[in-house]
Amino acid sequence: MSANLLLNLNSPADLRQLEETQLPQVAQELRNFIIDIVAVKEGHLGASLGVVELTIALHYVFDTPNDLLVWDVGHQAYGHKIITGRRDVFHTNRQLGGISGFPKRSESVYDTFGVGHSSTSISAALGMAIASNLKGDYNKQHIAVIGDASIASGMAFEGLNHAGVTDANLLVILNDNAIGIDPSVGALKQYLTAVKAGKNPRQNNMIKSLNFDYSGPIDGHDIFAVIKELKRLQKIKGPKFLHIITTKGKGLQQAEENQVIYHAPGKFDASTGVLQPKSEENLPPKYQDVFGLTILDLARKNEKIIGITPAMPSGSSLKFMMDEFPKRAFDVGIAEQHAVTLAAGMATQGMIVYCNIYSTFLQRAYDQVIHDVALQNLPVIFCLDRAGLVGEDGATHHGVFDIAYLRCIPNIIVYAPSNEIALQNILYTAQLGLNNPIAIRYPRGRGVITNWQAKNLGKYQEIEIGRSICNKKGSRIAVLSNGSIGNNVTLAIAKMQHPETIAHYDFSFVKPLDEKELHTLFNNFKTIVTIEDGTVKGGFGSAILEFASENSYTSKITVLGIPDEFIEQGTVAELQQYCKIDVKSLEILFSNY
Amino acid sequence: MSANLLLNLNSPADLRQLEETQLPQVAQELRNFIIDIVAVKEGHLGASLGVVELTIALHYVFDTPNDLLVWDVGHQAYGHKIITGRRDVFHTNRQLGGISGFPKRSESVYDTFGVGHSSTSISAALGMAIASNLKGDYNKQHIAVIGDASIASGMAFEGLNHAGVTDANLLVILNDNAIGIDPSVGALKQYLTAVKAGKNPRQNNMIKSLNFDYSGPIDGHDIFAVIKELKRLQKIKGPKFLHIITTKGKGLQQAEENQVIYHAPGKFDASTGVLQPKSEENLPPKYQDVFGLTILDLARKNEKIIGITPAMPSGSSLKFMMDEFPKRAFDVGIAEQHAVTLAAGMATQGMIVYCNIYSTFLQRAYDQVIHDVALQNLPVIFCLDRAGLVGEDGATHHGVFDIAYLRCIPNIIVYAPSNEIALQNILYTAQLGLNNPIAIRYPRGRGVITNWQAKNLGKYQEIEIGRSICNKKGSRIAVLSNGSIGNNVTLAIAKMQHPETIAHYDFSFVKPLDEKELHTLFNNFKTIVTIEDGTVKGGFGSAILEFASENSYTSKITVLGIPDEFIEQGTVAELQQYCKIDVKSLEILFSNY
Repeated sequence: MSANLLLNLNSPADLRQLEETQLPQVAQELRNFIIDIVAVKEGHLGASLGVVELTIALHYVFDTPNDLLVWDVGHQAYGHKIITGRRDVFHTNRQLGGISGFPKRSESVYDTFGVGHSSTSISAALGMAIASNLKGDYNKQHIAVIGDASIASGMAFEGLNHAGVTDANLLVILNDNAIGIDPSVGALKQYLTAVKAGKNPRQNNMIKSLNFDYSGPIDGHDIFAVIKELKRLQKIKGPKFLHIITTKGKGLQQAEENQVIYHAPGKFDASTGVLQPKSEENLPPKYQDVFGLTILDLARKNEKIIGITPAMPSGSSLKFMMDEFPKRAFDVGIAEQHAVTLAAGMATQGMIVYCNIYSTFLQRAYDQVIHDVALQNLPVIFCLDRAGLVGEDGATHHGVFDIAYLRCIPNIIVYAPSNEIALQNILYTAQLGLNNPIAIRYPRGRGVITNWQAKNLGKYQEIEIGRSICNKKGSRIAVLSNGSIGNNVTLAIAKMQHPETIAHYDFSFVKPLDEKELHTLFNNFKTIVTIEDGTVKGGFGSAILEFASENSYTSKITVLGIPDEFIEQGTVAELQQYCKIDVKSLEILFSNY
Repeated sequence: MSANLLLNLNSPADLRQLEETQLPQVAQELRNFIIDIVAVKEGHLGASLGVVELTIALHYVFDTPNDLLVWDVGHQAYGHKIITGRRDVFHTNRQLGGISGFPKRSESVYDTFGVGHSSTSISAALGMAIASNLKGDYNKQHIAVIGDASIASGMAFEGLNHAGVTDANLLVILNDNAIGIDPSVGALKQYLTAVKAGKNPRQNNMIKSLNFDYSGPIDGHDIFAVIKELKRLQKIKGPKFLHIITTKGKGLQQAEENQVIYHAPGKFDASTGVLQPKSEENLPPKYQDVFGLTILDLARKNEKIIGITPAMPSGSSLKFMMDEFPKRAFDVGIAEQHAVTLAAGMATQGMIVYCNIYSTFLQRAYDQVIHDVALQNLPVIFCLDRAGLVGEDGATHHGVFDIAYLRCIPNIIVYAPSNEIALQNILYTAQLGLNNPIAIRYPRGRGVITNWQAKNLGKYQEIEIGRSICNKKGSRIAVLSNGSIGNNVTLAIAKMQHPETIAHYDFSFVKPLDEKELHTLFNNFKTIVTIEDGTVKGGFGSAILEFASENSYTSKITVLGIPDEFIEQGTVAELQQYCKIDVKSLEILFSNY
């Protein structure tokens, strides 16, 4: 093999100087480069390995950045980043101040559209393609690369449905690997599987029905075949669709064989693929596992309990229930809108439905929460995973708007457990028979209680809806915390020289508020501090301001939380510090009162 | 013809006592009943006339309410309401205290799922069907009736995609009349048209691809054919799909020939169908026409301007631009998610995109506003029609959450024009080149300026972003109004005995706030009143509370707006009175300070 080619590739223009026969070597080097860095720095692995050949072929055939390339979701775009000028900063991927884990317009002219959430690429690329036509730029190419899990989402269908009646110069590439983060589901997936197997018994082609020029399926790892087909499609005007078959994790045996784990495997040995062992002993559990184990335990005892996840059985830990009760726990695919209204339909029939959706993804089903659940006051139980700052996934994934966007909806209860026990108890309480829908928001990652499972799982206590808890009395300042960020308050107070000045109340219920306790607090404290792991605009703090205004209280209120800006990636600790809701910042703030 | 059959039908059980041969007479009577009442009381006409035979056939064949029937959107459910026990209250349709214009669970056991927004029926009915299976009730039937415009929305696809891999006892009936409120669009519509014409050149059947047992298309006005097919499908387990062809407005010639106008025609002559002439002279224009005429005028002068509507060209008045600039104005169908991200894609290419979506429907694209527009700070111009209380459409359609759900998003400008001139000027200002996305919310119906078009159209003034306006100075109380509800404030002040006590400021910008003016006001007034045509939870008033808290102002602040409950139907005047934001309530409030 000749000299390292990747080291000399500083832009796609360099790539296009190479002979086609050199490209397999580039692919090998690119794959190794991704593996070597992700093994140490962590990140999304499998998706990017699966599109190495496609990435090279696209930049080889098309005139990027003049031709416009949109990656759906974008966690598969590491190769794209590396060969578009970011090779030497790729080791800062997903770090504070480093490059984003997803394509991002402000980062590179090659990143034509910021992504993170799925299924946006067809609409975005179609918009670009229509704009090009209006500008008279009829030769410009517009390419959306979308996976088989993402294309099953309703939004992607809307994009296809529109594109099919335009003359837009749009190429949709379906990267079909039969898996998203978890294996793909749904009737479309079965259809695609039949197509791949050469079995298409009804002679149907759904894509052709939508007026696309369909080609494929072809082997997405055969770089010459992909290039040949891209060159052919380049000459065809109007909406085109190329179906390619790839293997997620391609080139790293362990990743190919364990695709769910190697989606984002953490640190591993680059040469063997073996995961770096994690010492999990004596660590508090992940909130996700508290959810997953608790709902499993509750489901064993109450056969009306149903679980729903839109495509996150592993991430949410609903998989525990899916394994034991496959008929009562549903992965509906990337279909948040459907997930919520499905839950509503089930709730009309008396089922107790836990609908687990990441906070940031519930934004996709906002209307369904209002119109199908809250308006009918159906007691659906929303479990909003990854609420608050999520860390390295960054601006697209922080779940910081949910308190504001849910609190304005009538009927709904909004609750954020302060720890693992509170989470399990609210999950228990919810199935005792609420008269309202409830949203339970909890963070990504670990809680604070070691040995939670052995000590607490199954030992439930009912939570009184709307009741606050006094964590600590104090003389001068009342701190009202919502949810798990309250643990920072506890730690900050413990570090103070004069902790006796600070009272700390756990206001886990944003809605309904504990008005009785609030009256007492406002009558006794001249200074109130609220803190939440959510936006200060319209959030928990605003609810307290509204209460004070309605009741003509004049205590000074300080609202702490996420400022009115999009927060980039970093560790949760780093981002809390940035938002001044970390332990140290709180200690300083409290001490200065 | 024998005696009046409809008068003796007090429930579907009565219907099922009739001979099949009597059903055409029932259909005729039901059609006449709908026409007679809607002619006088107004409401949605065409859709219900189109499904008279289907409605009767469904209740005749299926064991409602044990079998569960979900109407998509629900404006076609008048016949359903009339034969399920609400014949004698149907004249109260859409009135304050009357029955809802849409199916509503609290109104009747036959209304299995509340609707209003489109495309929810498949998900809801599937949820019910899965619940029935889990309860061991394998014979229960679950039927979703959905139109061809609604089924093209992404959410419906998500429901089909899931249903196709279940054994749920679900029957989806596609009521294909090639029109929603406006004619249907998109590739799926073209496909269905080809199917209907017997042209299906590729031998495709998209629905079969999704594992449904497909039958049809059949004539939906042939009641015997429909009954026969429903009886056949009743015996088939699993997901089934029946494609029926109907004519919107069927049975009233004018309604059949002018389907857009007769969707909701206002008052008309029941015997001839002739619309009751409206005297529109000297009335202020509709905000919709101010939008439509202004964007047309601007589009003539600036070729970068693009208009987008998801299925509301008539309702939004984007049709004016669509007629003159068909290549630059897009009806994308009921696809709000796609509409927003399409706009974002166009904006990346320098186009100036006005994306007009009803406030209540923007809830469907909330994530796209955050993730695709605001996060990338793309200057998309959202025109939120029918913001605030909308009147007779009721709880499903009020646009009262938008201030709260938009205000928490970084980067976005949120503006509510106080009148027609402000609306045209902000539309003008937006295309001068903003650095941010903007949401412009304005109400349904008429403004306040007679002869607006002749006097003002085309005479633009740039609006300074974030600037408030002093409408009136005053001595004791400062009223800060957002948007057109400010006109009630003006009228209320004019009626007061001591108007000199009230200062009135137009804070049309919710975001950014005019902080300079707020500092002055809080330094000069001990009493501040905010008023908005939106929810008091997290809305404009909360923004003022946040400002006061951040700056340690202690003025008493009273927040007026929509209370924290779902508001039912009624005239806008009645509902404003209920919410105490009508002129009279304000006059009393201001006088009592």
